[in-house]
Amino acid sequence: MTTSHPLDEALRLEAAGNGSPGTWQGHTHADYWNMVGPFGGTTAATALRAILMHPALLGEPVALTVNYAAAVAEGAFTVTARPVRTNRSTQHWAVELSQADAAGGALEVVMTATAVTAARRETWSQSDTPMPAAASPDAAARLQVSSAAWTSRYDLRPVRGVIPPVWDGSGEDSLTQLWVRDDPPRPLDFPALAALSDVFYPRVWLRRATRVPAGTVSITTYFHADSAQLAQCGDGFLFGQARAQAFRNGFFDQTAQLWSEAGVLLATSTQIVYYKE
Amino acid sequence: MTTSHPLDEALRLEAAGNGSPGTWQGHTHADYWNMVGPFGGTTAATALRAILMHPALLGEPVALTVNYAAAVAEGAFTVTARPVRTNRSTQHWAVELSQADAAGGALEVVMTATAVTAARRETWSQSDTPMPAAASPDAAARLQVSSAAWTSRYDLRPVRGVIPPVWDGSGEDSLTQLWVRDDPPRPLDFPALAALSDVFYPRVWLRRATRVPAGTVSITTYFHADSAQLAQCGDGFLFGQARAQAFRNGFFDQTAQLWSEAGVLLATSTQIVYYKE
Repeated sequence: MTTSHPLDEALRLEAAGNGSPGTWQGHTHADYWNMVGPFGGTTAATALRAILMHPALLGEPVALTVNYAAAVAEGAFTVTARPVRTNRSTQHWAVELSQADAAGGALEVVMTATAVTAARRETWSQSDTPMPAAASPDAAARLQVSSAAWTSRYDLRPVRGVIPPVWDGSGEDSLTQLWVRDDPPRPLDFPALAALSDVFYPRVWLRRATRVPAGTVSITTYFHADSAQLAQCGDGFLFGQARAQAFRNGFFDQTAQLWSEAGVLLATSTQIVYYKE
Repeated sequence: MTTSHPLDEALRLEAAGNGSPGTWQGHTHADYWNMVGPFGGTTAATALRAILMHPALLGEPVALTVNYAAAVAEGAFTVTARPVRTNRSTQHWAVELSQADAAGGALEVVMTATAVTAARRETWSQSDTPMPAAASPDAAARLQVSSAAWTSRYDLRPVRGVIPPVWDGSGEDSLTQLWVRDDPPRPLDFPALAALSDVFYPRVWLRRATRVPAGTVSITTYFHADSAQLAQCGDGFLFGQARAQAFRNGFFDQTAQLWSEAGVLLATSTQIVYYKE
């Protein structure tokens, strides 16, 4: 008997059987549930997986933008991936995730995404963002507290910028650094990396030491690594860093970086997040 | 007699007359021509303008992602903006720009975009990215050299990280800082700010002091300011900063910030750029 990883269960897509090569059926997974919908990271990973399963796929992911148009309801969804333009070495994608409306009738869009895939070739390369100095993951304590199911599916080991233990308005900056990997450990691939890009809790909580409602509206992730570099990471820890540049009238941004344990910058990401009050 | 600003001419859209409220016809403008197509900033601004002209628009721009699927040819184009999902205070958009193929027949997609607009309300706010110290724009010399028409439509005054005067492979970092405004001066609005987010030359030229073919594949801009804050900028200079985090096998990223002359962070942006060799 083989058992599948919960992330693979959450990302399972089945052909819609309507003859369209880019339409799949999926289902939310209890293990990755957040407050009012699934963890946004798995929704982003689902968009990317729909692209990677498409028979017309060219190359590997370079860029992914996911827009969270509405809360995804518990249950089934339809995801469509469409190659909008295929060039010699790059391909542009449009993705939509939709669900039946409250009355169980018409499909409503709950997520849109665009992506670029590319057949990369070796060129001059240079990493200008070294991984910050930090003690090894073995030396960092695992985060224990959370009310959201999905956080238990990650082994999160904060190094700096932990969720404030007291909500006393004392925040000074928005920088979090942490070690993270899937739990149970799972070999890294592009969907997993897309999900990991959204693993940081809302920067506004840290900056204000105040817990206010907040939710990602749009996230963009650039993949600097290819599949061979991801394979080299195995199921090891990644080092992640996130901070905000500005909080203004209901929206803040977050920039993030993810490195392999060996210090290779795998992905950079940015997101815009709604917050209240 | 009134004369219109070249940017407004470049962004002119006329109803397609097909009864669809989100379809417009536009035309490339010689003043904003780049090497093999229009300046990508004007293409991004066109996508945003199509949204802003839509009768169903809710609120003001918060996020814009533009994917450059193919070079835009000189001449006419069709742009469609579609409100994919309208919530109580946010709205999600899908935009496509297309042109007749080489045979003058079927429309082909040359640009896709997604955007989020929102009705903002006043909340706790905090800017965590102060404008770098720099002499005033009056003290900076205007950039004179360029082979691309569009650069003459901006008064660019580099403070740091000018285009290398000699291509000798001596580059050390990828940081550019500059003052910039439209030329002739023009009151700032969202389309102009979207275009300004793409005003930096390729980071790989600076980092390597080597000129290689390069072109933006996808750009994401977050608008932190509302229209009142943009109006306060008038036609003054903005301070811009851009740098890369990684160059890897044909693609590098660029993160950028744009402040008003008074030091208000107006927009943050990131893009992924193709480069050769």
